[in-house]
Amino acid sequence: MREVAILGVAMTKFGNSERTNMEMFAEAGLEAINNSNIEAKELEALFFGNCLGTFEEGQMHMAAFAHSALGMRMSAPSTRFEGACATATVAVRHAALLVGAGVYDMVIAGGAERTTAMGTPLATRTFAMGCQAQYETPLGITFPGVFGMAAHMYSKKYGIPIKELKRNMAEVSVKNHFHGAKNPKAHFKKEISVEKVLSGAFIADPLQLLDCCPFSDGAAAVVVASADKAKQLVDKPIYIAGTGQAAAGPLYHQQDLTRVIAREVSMKGAYKQAGIGPQDIDVCELHDCFTIAEIMAIESMGFYEFGKGYDAAAKGETRLGGKIVVNPSGGLKSKGHPIGATGAAQVTEIVEQLRGESGSRQVEGAKIGLVDTLGGDFGTVCNIILRS
Amino acid sequence: MREVAILGVAMTKFGNSERTNMEMFAEAGLEAINNSNIEAKELEALFFGNCLGTFEEGQMHMAAFAHSALGMRMSAPSTRFEGACATATVAVRHAALLVGAGVYDMVIAGGAERTTAMGTPLATRTFAMGCQAQYETPLGITFPGVFGMAAHMYSKKYGIPIKELKRNMAEVSVKNHFHGAKNPKAHFKKEISVEKVLSGAFIADPLQLLDCCPFSDGAAAVVVASADKAKQLVDKPIYIAGTGQAAAGPLYHQQDLTRVIAREVSMKGAYKQAGIGPQDIDVCELHDCFTIAEIMAIESMGFYEFGKGYDAAAKGETRLGGKIVVNPSGGLKSKGHPIGATGAAQVTEIVEQLRGESGSRQVEGAKIGLVDTLGGDFGTVCNIILRS
Repeated sequence: MREVAILGVAMTKFGNSERTNMEMFAEAGLEAINNSNIEAKELEALFFGNCLGTFEEGQMHMAAFAHSALGMRMSAPSTRFEGACATATVAVRHAALLVGAGVYDMVIAGGAERTTAMGTPLATRTFAMGCQAQYETPLGITFPGVFGMAAHMYSKKYGIPIKELKRNMAEVSVKNHFHGAKNPKAHFKKEISVEKVLSGAFIADPLQLLDCCPFSDGAAAVVVASADKAKQLVDKPIYIAGTGQAAAGPLYHQQDLTRVIAREVSMKGAYKQAGIGPQDIDVCELHDCFTIAEIMAIESMGFYEFGKGYDAAAKGETRLGGKIVVNPSGGLKSKGHPIGATGAAQVTEIVEQLRGESGSRQVEGAKIGLVDTLGGDFGTVCNIILRS
Repeated sequence: MREVAILGVAMTKFGNSERTNMEMFAEAGLEAINNSNIEAKELEALFFGNCLGTFEEGQMHMAAFAHSALGMRMSAPSTRFEGACATATVAVRHAALLVGAGVYDMVIAGGAERTTAMGTPLATRTFAMGCQAQYETPLGITFPGVFGMAAHMYSKKYGIPIKELKRNMAEVSVKNHFHGAKNPKAHFKKEISVEKVLSGAFIADPLQLLDCCPFSDGAAAVVVASADKAKQLVDKPIYIAGTGQAAAGPLYHQQDLTRVIAREVSMKGAYKQAGIGPQDIDVCELHDCFTIAEIMAIESMGFYEFGKGYDAAAKGETRLGGKIVVNPSGGLKSKGHPIGATGAAQVTEIVEQLRGESGSRQVEGAKIGLVDTLGGDFGTVCNIILRS
């Protein structure tokens, strides 16, 4: 496998948009192409992520239209990927694998999603289609339900009173909003307080409104090329040091809802390929779909021992200036979560951090960054380790 | 790129099924694994195709559950692909690319689809989501409409009276039903006559009912491995000699509805990689979603000059015993069309033909075979050339 790098990256502002998926993807894709100092016709393939386009726009087969929106050549194939919330991360990883293997020299990967116009009830229902539909959905399982259960189990397993855990979960939300307030592309650009989180409406006990990420619209794209090509084209190529992807079955096969075992398997592969360990990561964009999910993730990645990560945000250790900065973009919680675009936006943030281009939310001296995305209720995890 | 081969293949019976996508895929997948003389735990990745699972079963993120249904190991990632009707072909091609590049040694690819239980109106509506939703769908464009227009344009462009063209189109349907009657897995196992086709209900002028493939339920799977591994495991590995994939934009960008230019681009790549030309193909499974589509395809592939392929079926040249046997399985028309599974079923047929295992529909002495699948209204084409 040859060395692979990321050239241009771009994302739309996340939030409520009246634009179509293709309009949003064209903005992100063309900006990523422009930032790569190339033309669309030089790209050899498109790896495109989208989850809910059939419900939202009556549109299947979106990759071909995304290809056309960018003005790519016909001999460059376009392929749609879907892995629930990990959709775009999986697309970027496949791009990295095929460039690394020498099948392509330069490709674009990313995704787009519209979720806000359908309204919260339908968005909740269609998101829940990432859970197992035959046995789980009829029991009323949606994602807030899954992570609400996980929070209760975490509390019980580690003997942390639920009230104490909830205060620490709220600190995760406060920290991610603190970061997001510095991100012009974030869905929510405002700071919040622990008290505000703890006074929110209950969504799925113990999760309150501000423990949950929003439904967002948005798109993101990254150009992936061989390292040789990247060095010729851009000043600061960011290298893909390792990737991982793992699959687990339905939630009812999981032994312990406080640990996403597929993440541990995926990360093991990514760390091994990169030849590094958790102590080497300077900055991480991870899947904080719910506050408890961030706590679970930092433990599975090895930043904290199991049962010891719950107060990392409260201690300031995962905040800008802390020992391992988590979600400097604001994360899914504050930056937003247009599911088919999320992974590519995480890559965009890490690339900009490693280039030192993140302005007031810059992690000083960041050299190695990690992307983590969870798809479904523990069924797909995809990780990408980047280095400057 | 190292040499890649196909080991075991399998498909369910196509038709009306009361089984879930996972139940069908488990049948096909486990049979393909068994025919490969391996165990599921040896597989390193799953490339899974499905189009309409969200509408049909309320299920997104199906790849993770397909992975679990086969009993694969967690470190083997599962990824869902979607390219409208070309979905499973794209999945198989990505499997071939990643095995060829040495990323994996042995993987499984395939797909599953349920379409019949939703009924014809909703199936027609959701299939049409493969067309461009913003400008085409509001004009009433569905797939029968697209190919009805193509037939009229073919008639006009080549000066073939529509009545004569329709009789020749009917011969395509008769030929594919003749083949399908010999296929125990086919949706429709009965021969039909030209008169029966020409007395059918009109679907989209000039297409009548038996010019159109059915909606079907079914699944198919193929195991892909390095040639070295394949030779150790099975008696008759079938080699992937070349693949192609191309993308075009929406139909309103197409200059000439009688030619699928993306197919010409895709086939050029596949022929070049295989180092052969159309004269070398012994047997072909191609995308006969409508009778006119088969006529267009055999011209784009170079079996016939443009405007000269319309009477190939009537002359018996594409029938068993003819000079280039097209759709010996019965094709989409008679074997059926569960869209997310179709490409893997086409590969299954060609592999069995090249192994000499096709019984009464065997193409004698077949050594090189071609798979062709069209996704959407000309937006995605994927081709795979196989040899014994």
